[in-house]
Amino acid sequence: MKTMYKILLSFGLVACIISAAYAQFAKPEDAITYRKAVMTLIGHHFKQVAAVVKGQQPYDRNDVARNATLVEVFSKLPWDAFMVPESDRGATQLNPDAFARRSKFMEAGSKLETEATKLVGAANSGNLDAIKKQFGAVAKSCQDCHKPFRTR
Amino acid sequence: MKTMYKILLSFGLVACIISAAYAQFAKPEDAITYRKAVMTLIGHHFKQVAAVVKGQQPYDRNDVARNATLVEVFSKLPWDAFMVPESDRGATQLNPDAFARRSKFMEAGSKLETEATKLVGAANSGNLDAIKKQFGAVAKSCQDCHKPFRTR
Repeated sequence: MKTMYKILLSFGLVACIISAAYAQFAKPEDAITYRKAVMTLIGHHFKQVAAVVKGQQPYDRNDVARNATLVEVFSKLPWDAFMVPESDRGATQLNPDAFARRSKFMEAGSKLETEATKLVGAANSGNLDAIKKQFGAVAKSCQDCHKPFRTR
Repeated sequence: MKTMYKILLSFGLVACIISAAYAQFAKPEDAITYRKAVMTLIGHHFKQVAAVVKGQQPYDRNDVARNATLVEVFSKLPWDAFMVPESDRGATQLNPDAFARRSKFMEAGSKLETEATKLVGAANSGNLDAIKKQFGAVAKSCQDCHKPFRTR
């Protein structure tokens, strides 16, 4: 599979654009579980890039591209799940303000998608300086959403 | 993004093959959290296909293709995380037998990947009967791994 990945990478086909989630959730708790899972995976794969950016791990072009691509894929998934009514209660850090300022929230989510796509571009370019710069932009988009819409 | 997805779909480029995970986990707990997140997402998106297969939701070709593609992408991620030493303890259902029979476990994981790829093929064909048949094959691959390697 790694070979196939490299082939796709070399053709620049790994953008793997996936449409926004239209997933159905039977209960608010299901939406919470879903979006937490997505956030866990975004965090995990972004941290793998972080380790390279911070010089804690050696730079492997394919590995960074793979992690960036996964961040991009995951970045498209959770936003609708955050908007499920009553999913601001229970085991969640969602600030209920997200419901009142839905368009601002969705805009912030969309910003992550955009920046993550650019990170894939930088990763595919193989330019570590470009990766470092865009890594910062993605991190900023995380913070710009967490600050107003995440509690604690 | 939905338009872009449709375009990619129509060109059959959404296979989005991603290599097996080489993710690093600082602690066994991190590996458990990671693979649980992946399993949550596989379960969620597979259930969306299940709802169509069972006639509980109307058949939407793009939606089934999207969910199948996500199952395929996620199916490639968790196996190494299951093999992290000591990650059979704590909040996990992993049967320690998975360590002793590593090749059997990895084979079972690989089987899900193969069947999920075929599900994407069926989904892209737009043939609901083919989707139903392959849905069963994916479900069987889940059970064939859960039965020997999942506790409770």
